[in-house]
Amino acid sequence: MLRVISTTLAKSSNLAATAATASMQIGSFRKQSTIIKQSDGVREIVLNDPRARNTLSCEVMSSIFDGITKDVHDESLRCIVISSTGPVWSAGHNLKEISASSDGGHAIFSQLVDIILNIYKSPVPIIAKVNGMATAAGLQLAASCDMVVASDKASFAASGVNIGIFCTTPGIAISRVMPRMKSSYLLFTGFPINAQDALTAGLASVVVPEAQLDAETNKITQSIKEKPRAILAMGKKFYYKQLGLSVKDAYDQGTDVMVKNIGMEDAQEGLKSFVEKRKPNFNKK
Amino acid sequence: MLRVISTTLAKSSNLAATAATASMQIGSFRKQSTIIKQSDGVREIVLNDPRARNTLSCEVMSSIFDGITKDVHDESLRCIVISSTGPVWSAGHNLKEISASSDGGHAIFSQLVDIILNIYKSPVPIIAKVNGMATAAGLQLAASCDMVVASDKASFAASGVNIGIFCTTPGIAISRVMPRMKSSYLLFTGFPINAQDALTAGLASVVVPEAQLDAETNKITQSIKEKPRAILAMGKKFYYKQLGLSVKDAYDQGTDVMVKNIGMEDAQEGLKSFVEKRKPNFNKK
Amino acid sequence: MLRVISTTLAKSSNLAATAATASMQIGSFRKQSTIIKQSDGVREIVLNDPRARNTLSCEVMSSIFDGITKDVHDESLRCIVISSTGPVWSAGHNLKEISASSDGGHAIFSQLVDIILNIYKSPVPIIAKVNGMATAAGLQLAASCDMVVASDKASFAASGVNIGIFCTTPGIAISRVMPRMKSSYLLFTGFPINAQDALTAGLASVVVPEAQLDAETNKITQSIKEKPRAILAMGKKFYYKQLGLSVKDAYDQGTDVMVKNIGMEDAQEGLKSFVEKRKPNFNKK
Repeated sequence: MLRVISTTLAKSSNLAATAATASMQIGSFRKQSTIIKQSDGVREIVLNDPRARNTLSCEVMSSIFDGITKDVHDESLRCIVISSTGPVWSAGHNLKEISASSDGGHAIFSQLVDIILNIYKSPVPIIAKVNGMATAAGLQLAASCDMVVASDKASFAASGVNIGIFCTTPGIAISRVMPRMKSSYLLFTGFPINAQDALTAGLASVVVPEAQLDAETNKITQSIKEKPRAILAMGKKFYYKQLGLSVKDAYDQGTDVMVKNIGMEDAQEGLKSFVEKRKPNFNKK
Repeated sequence: MLRVISTTLAKSSNLAATAATASMQIGSFRKQSTIIKQSDGVREIVLNDPRARNTLSCEVMSSIFDGITKDVHDESLRCIVISSTGPVWSAGHNLKEISASSDGGHAIFSQLVDIILNIYKSPVPIIAKVNGMATAAGLQLAASCDMVVASDKASFAASGVNIGIFCTTPGIAISRVMPRMKSSYLLFTGFPINAQDALTAGLASVVVPEAQLDAETNKITQSIKEKPRAILAMGKKFYYKQLGLSVKDAYDQGTDVMVKNIGMEDAQEGLKSFVEKRKPNFNKK
Repeated sequence: MLRVISTTLAKSSNLAATAATASMQIGSFRKQSTIIKQSDGVREIVLNDPRARNTLSCEVMSSIFDGITKDVHDESLRCIVISSTGPVWSAGHNLKEISASSDGGHAIFSQLVDIILNIYKSPVPIIAKVNGMATAAGLQLAASCDMVVASDKASFAASGVNIGIFCTTPGIAISRVMPRMKSSYLLFTGFPINAQDALTAGLASVVVPEAQLDAETNKITQSIKEKPRAILAMGKKFYYKQLGLSVKDAYDQGTDVMVKNIGMEDAQEGLKSFVEKRKPNFNKK
């Protein structure tokens, strides 16, 4: 069952409860800059304003924030995908809003940082499904997801510098997933790189022909859904934590996480299924 | 001269002294889960239990630990290779042992961490020669070697999550050698990547067709043997140290290491040979 | 207008003022180990002693240091390119000088570290344009530039170990731009990797056929020249700073840098040009 549970023009305080309402509203509004729908455990945040090149306006960021944080501890939610319609995945911040802001964009930049920190904190994996250009803060958002699944139509640029705004905050995101020689190339030149270069550089987890992007994304979300939610959540949490630790500290703490994992019901079922040579029957909570 | 100096079923307290004995024992036991042999400066630890998919049982880990730590300051030892027989390089920990453990696997996980920290500490380069699947703790072991030389038959997966055990400790190893987008893909999906993807992602140092794996590995070990042992040891030690330092501190300390290196007899011979346009005649100690 | 503003044999205390003089001297000396020329905002430091394999003698390093640091706050300087003549980009330190040094090479190694720290500190992007072999300290210098633009004739090796001098300080540079499995392969074996492998490993920003190397480099320098100098300088400074910060601290500080950027005249012009759908007309200071 596919439910449309939120749109930018029809934000709900309780995603699940108002799903039907929001769904009806889709017919009545022609322009929803963001659509949030959830089906069988996978929530999809669709950037849906191709005419505005899916810019991350405050309204859109507010929707993304909702999509990433609302009811996130609901056990039926297993995975979040951020996708887009149109040739531009996201062109980054809304420059008119930045121009008009009274704080030099501080609140706007901070709003995206909030989203990013909540991506890291989210108990479920969050996937950027990229089928177009991701530039500036759009690049930053994609590079801050747990995984980037891209089609051969994807491209990436730190293009802010072209209008005199160095992609300083996007640089924080990309320099943590790409080699320095590649991230500095993007930041200093503003030039785009294509999907294959992004894959080589480590910015994309996987790249497939456009026609296979849905199938590839579904393969990954399906794989996630077959795994115990609580165990993925614990694994993800420590994964980001250990990135900042020394090898020794990481192993000291990581060993404790492993032991805790082994003690969990679904791990016990997994071990048993292995010994009994059958598929595990997870609780998935 | 090839000497078989240890097997899992015939561990020796002095590898060199009991080589002949262990060698004889090979004939009398059909199943050696690990074979350790040394020839002309290169010690090879062969994971040799393909029916058990070369799982890292406590016994096997104990053998690997011995292979990595015993007589390691013996000047005749120049390099260690960890290889395997069969289609699986190593499937990771022995799940039955984890199931049966009274401490949730703590001692088992710690045993592998001990091996890994000793790989980093070893004065000689340690190479994973991978000609098959390396999964979970097997992936962790490979990713913790100084180099990974893989054939096109190699593949890599953080597969624990498939049975409800997130590869938390393998994640520590792979997130330090691969881009985040790739390591998270492995960890969350449990999907394998092939040798070429591993090379692109930085997990493999070099990938060759299966038929050339021996030659490629030998080329590397031969190259190592031609270099002064003490100088490689000093270089390796500081290499791992500086990874955790700021650029400034690394250069401050690294410059001192360079000066110490220059003062060593073999470096003086190297410099002299360069000036005299001849091959260096190293002491190699 | 192309001006030759310095050579190793004719160093000036004021690059701009003595340009003509140095230019004249080019005719009178056949061997300039380094040529520094500046044209339309792009300064090029040409390693020009192919017979000496462009070794980084103290004299050459002194020239490079000058080329990187002199008049660097002159607003007409927008970008620095380090290129070479001949098949070897640079073979690293001058081993005869190291042999003859009374401090085990400490001053020599430190001289290169000074250059590298000034590359990071430079307000303008510094590009290694590599059309040949870069080995040992030559590799270190290339890997310490902001970008490496390489031709398919480029190759890279940490070759010091072949003469008993482990590339400890080059290792600091390359382990910060390449995956560990690749940098350790270079350091332990001394083997070269070609341009394509360097690109995959993250050591090169871009690789093109030799015939396109000039055009590719010019494309990048042209792109840099079209951007505001002060904004690139601020972006570069924080880029290197944030590499050593936690994600949280990087975003806290990076958001402030973004706000400062937005407040700058050229960013305001950039924003205005975007709204007015025209090209920005930057002050470029």
